[in-house]
Order: sequence, then structure tokens, then C-alpha cells
Amino acid sequence: MEEILVKPIGIINTPYTTANNIPIQGRFDDSVEGCCVLNKEYFRGLLHLDGFSHAILIYYFHKVEKEEIIASPLLETTEHGVFAIRSPYRPNKIGFSIVKIKKIIRNKLFFTEVDIFDGTPLIDIKPFIKHFDNRENVISGWVDKHFENGNIPDETILNRK
Amino acid sequence: MEEILVKPIGIINTPYTTANNIPIQGRFDDSVEGCCVLNKEYFRGLLHLDGFSHAILIYYFHKVEKEEIIASPLLETTEHGVFAIRSPYRPNKIGFSIVKIKKIIRNKLFFTEVDIFDGTPLIDIKPFIKHFDNRENVISGWVDKHFENGNIPDETILNRK
Repeated sequence: MEEILVKPIGIINTPYTTANNIPIQGRFDDSVEGCCVLNKEYFRGLLHLDGFSHAILIYYFHKVEKEEIIASPLLETTEHGVFAIRSPYRPNKIGFSIVKIKKIIRNKLFFTEVDIFDGTPLIDIKPFIKHFDNRENVISGWVDKHFENGNIPDETILNRK
Repeated sequence: MEEILVKPIGIINTPYTTANNIPIQGRFDDSVEGCCVLNKEYFRGLLHLDGFSHAILIYYFHKVEKEEIIASPLLETTEHGVFAIRSPYRPNKIGFSIVKIKKIIRNKLFFTEVDIFDGTPLIDIKPFIKHFDNRENVISGWVDKHFENGNIPDETILNRK
């Protein structure tokens, strides 16, 4: 199979310039704001995205160099396959985050629920559509036990190190 | 910004060899089965994914050649920006589907809720984690009106043509 060439459509700016305080998933922190800055040729593609409350960002883990096929995730020391965890140390360093849209001004999409490094190359934006993307009767494998009885783990990337 | 090189980690086999009957989103058809066949060097990465009910597949729209920054989606004729619709005619032809895991045998992941073309290059698999990926209080812009009063649109790619 041939290699696929992906061109960044813009850049993601966030306050996270080191791994220090990035939350394990953005939905647990609504107070931090990020911004997607699209290249000029793409900004018309944002038309009507402001009617949505949430967007899916697809981006490139540009800081990551290693690849781990088996690894332990942030939440525990047990090892799992890379396709059963959300680690950035993946064969293709493609990241995926659901963010909350705040406002769109020309080529800028401002959002909260951020878990992304500053300067991350943006690959795609898709609207989050509840009728397609929310799932019922979900079992989340090794993760569920960490959220039992309404618990929300407060680990960040830093805590783990 | 530099271009990013992505290498397929395997291939997705489905019964959809033409656009004729692909549902607009896989979650509306649970009767059709697809299979991710991973390249040998990656299959250990599936370890413990069988504990999850759903997975996120990230793949390459290999059949797509055109790019449309403004377009009308399958569900209506009104035009929207490409980042406000789920069209495959995107700047980067990266697709995203949530599928229901049936079983995993060695390097094969069998799933239902399929909306993917046969022979599609697979880029990544991530576990669907309800605590991270389900969202409450979602507004889905121009899409919501098509699902009013429990309606489920029955359009497929074929119906539209």
C-alpha cells in the first residue's frame, strides 16, 4: 500500500506550550481556550460551522517521535495495545479531539475543552453531529473502572511523569 | 508548514464495492459486516481492544479525487462549508467512522455499523471511550431539523444521485 500525503490546513494555537498541564482529555477543562487558524484558501470551509456546538479536530502529533505498539496509558500501569488506548505514540501520529465551539471569526475557530499542544498542525475539522457520533450502550474496556461511581480522574500528563 | 506522510496500517474490507448502497452513516445499519485487516507488524496493537464495544476508525477516502470547499451535503441542497459537513471531498481525504466491534481474531477486527468503501486504506484505530467521546447538550446546526420528532432519514449515497 502506498504512502498518503497529508497537507496541514492550518495550525492550532493553545496555552499548552509544554506537556505540564495538558488534561488527559479536554472535556474535563472548559476554562482554557484554543484557536484553529486556517490557511487563507480554506477559511470559506467554515461556513455554517457556527451553528454547531461542538467540532471534531483531526491533527498531527508533531512533537511525537517514538512509536509503541504495546504501552500503558496515562490512567494505569497495565499494558494494552496502542489501538486500545489513546496514546500519541501511534504508527500514524494522528490525533482526534472533540472541542466546544465558542466563536468563528473569518479564518479563526475559537474553542474550549482543549487537550492539544500549541503549534499543532491541523489536518481536518468535522462537525460533531449528535445523531451520528453519540453512542448508547457503550462498554469502554479497561477505562470504565476509572470512572466508576461518577469518579473523574484528575491525572494530567504531568502527574504521570 | 510541511507535508505529513501517513502510512496505511492495513485495509478495510466491506461489502460496499460501489457507492450504490452505502448508508449515510453506518450506525443506521447494523446488519452489514466489515473487517479491518492489519498489516502483520501492527496486529499486537489490538491487544485488549476486544474489551470495548465500539472503535473509531480513521481512514483514507482513496476513491475521492475532487475537493469542494463549499458544497451541499447528502441530506439537503443548501450549501455549507466543507468543515460543517461530513463530505469526503475534503482538503485532506481523511474519513472517520465509529463502528461496533464484533470480534477480533489475530490481525482482523470484525465490525458492524459500516459506511466505508471496500478496499479503503486504514490509518488508525482508537477505542471509543464513552467518558471522552459522548457529548451532552449538543446542537448539530443544519442537521438537527432532519432528525426532528425521532425521524431517521433513509437517504443513501445512491438515492441522492
